[in-house]
Amino acid sequence: MSVIAKFYARAAALNSFVCVGLDTDLAQIPARFQSSTTPQLDFNRWVIDQTAPYAAAFKINTAFYEARGSAGWVELEQTIAYLRANHPSILTICDAKRGDIGSTSAAYARAIFDHMGFDSVTLNPYLGRDALEPFLSRGDKGCILLCRTSNPGSGEFQDMPVGGMPLWLWIGEQISRTWNGRHNCMLVVGATYPKEIERVRAVVGDMPFLIPGVGAQGGDLEATVRAGLTPERQGIIINASRSIIYADDPAIAAQQLRDDIRSIITKL
Amino acid sequence: MSVIAKFYARAAALNSFVCVGLDTDLAQIPARFQSSTTPQLDFNRWVIDQTAPYAAAFKINTAFYEARGSAGWVELEQTIAYLRANHPSILTICDAKRGDIGSTSAAYARAIFDHMGFDSVTLNPYLGRDALEPFLSRGDKGCILLCRTSNPGSGEFQDMPVGGMPLWLWIGEQISRTWNGRHNCMLVVGATYPKEIERVRAVVGDMPFLIPGVGAQGGDLEATVRAGLTPERQGIIINASRSIIYADDPAIAAQQLRDDIRSIITKL
Repeated sequence: MSVIAKFYARAAALNSFVCVGLDTDLAQIPARFQSSTTPQLDFNRWVIDQTAPYAAAFKINTAFYEARGSAGWVELEQTIAYLRANHPSILTICDAKRGDIGSTSAAYARAIFDHMGFDSVTLNPYLGRDALEPFLSRGDKGCILLCRTSNPGSGEFQDMPVGGMPLWLWIGEQISRTWNGRHNCMLVVGATYPKEIERVRAVVGDMPFLIPGVGAQGGDLEATVRAGLTPERQGIIINASRSIIYADDPAIAAQQLRDDIRSIITKL
Repeated sequence: MSVIAKFYARAAALNSFVCVGLDTDLAQIPARFQSSTTPQLDFNRWVIDQTAPYAAAFKINTAFYEARGSAGWVELEQTIAYLRANHPSILTICDAKRGDIGSTSAAYARAIFDHMGFDSVTLNPYLGRDALEPFLSRGDKGCILLCRTSNPGSGEFQDMPVGGMPLWLWIGEQISRTWNGRHNCMLVVGATYPKEIERVRAVVGDMPFLIPGVGAQGGDLEATVRAGLTPERQGIIINASRSIIYADDPAIAAQQLRDDIRSIITKL
C-alpha cells in the first residue's frame, strides 16, 4: 500500500483529515513534562495517545528537537518509534524541508526513510528534480513538496510571474507533470492563502495537499477545505500544531477540528 | 568581529580561500576509522588537524551525521566543539540548507547558532525574508543563501525568467538589496556555472560567495576564481569535500587547492 493510500484508508476509517503537528517546544509544554528526563517524548506520548482517535496523520517538526541537540534527536527517534509501534495505521510526516544536491539528499533519505522509518518528508523544490531524486525514487514513501508556504511574506519569490503564472503555480504544475511518476508526490499549500489553494487544485489533479496554517497562523478553515478538496472529496491533510498540542485538552481540540472539517464537507 | 571579517582575517593570514567540507560518509572513510565507536568524530579530527594549516573555513554537511541518527548527531556536536576549542580562528559553516516559517526558523537558529555554536549556516530562500528573519537578525552570525546551486538540474526553476533575468539572479540581487542590512549575508553559487558566478558578482557588490563544486563535481577552478573574486581580490570561499577528505593525503589535497587558487590569482 502506498503511503497516500495509507492516509486515505485512515482518513476514511475516522472520517478525518486532521494532521496533528508535534512542534514540541520545550519552553511551551506543561511544567509537569519539563521536569522529566525525556520531556519531549513524554509530552508527545501524552498528546499522541489522546489525539490518535481523531488523527489521520502526525507531523513531526524536526526543528524543535534539533534545538535541544542530540538529546532532542534521541527523543525524535523515540517518538517516531512510538508512533510506528503503537499507531502503525497513521501516516507519519517528517517536517524537515530538506533539499540538497543528490549525494546529500541520498544521505537525508537514508536518515528519514530508513533509519527513522518515516512514511514521508517535506522537501524544498528550489534545487530541481535531479537533486531530490533519492526521495522521489522511493515509491514506498511520500514526498511533500513546498508549493505555496503559509508565512506572511511567502510571496516575495513565490509570487514572481513566470510563464504567465506565479512561480508557486508553475512549480506545482511542473511537479504534477514531471516529478510524480511514482504517484508519491504531495504539495504544501498554506491555509493562509485559500484562493491559491484553489488555483493549485485546478492544475494538479488529485494530488494530496498538506495544508498548514489553520490554527495559530489564522487561516480560514472553511475556505481552505472548499478550495483543497478533490471532486472525490479527498486530497487534504489539514495540519494544526500549536492550537492542538498546547490546548488545555488536546483530544477535544483535535476532535473539534475533525468535526469542523466534517461539517464543512457535509454542507457542500 | 563579524564572521565575514573572521573569514577574511584567516584567509589573509594563510593566503587561502579553501573551505574543507566534512561530508563524512561512514561508508567512505578508511576502515581504521569505521571500527571506532566514534567513527565520524575520529575521522574528522584526523582530517581537521591535517588540513587546518590550509583551511580558511570548515563546512559540516549535517546530512551525513543525521544518516546515523542520534549517534551521528552526537558526533556532529563533538566535531563542532572540537573545531571551536582547537581552531577558533577558522570560520565554521553548518551546511543544513534550512528554510521554514519564522517560529520554526527560530528553533533552527537556536540549534545551529546557540546550542552548537556554528558561525554560519546555509539557508534556502524560497520562503522569503520574513521566514528567515531569526537567522538574518543575528548580526553576530553568517547567513549563506542558496542562489545558483551546483547540481546538473539546478536550472529547472532557478533559470526561470523573472523581471528580465533568471530567478537565481533576481534572488541574489534581492538579497543584496534588501536582506543584508546587517552585512551578514553570503550566497551559494556553484563552481559548475562560472559564467553565472560572474553575473551574480556584477550585481551583488562584495558579498562573499560560498562556492561548492570544484572537486568531485568537476567545476572549472580557474574560471570560478576569476568570476567570483571582488576587485579587492576577496569574496570567495572555495569548498571541496570529497576530493580533500577522501584523498590519500588530505593535507596535500588541501594545500594543492590553496596553491592552485593562489597561482590563478597571482596571474591576474
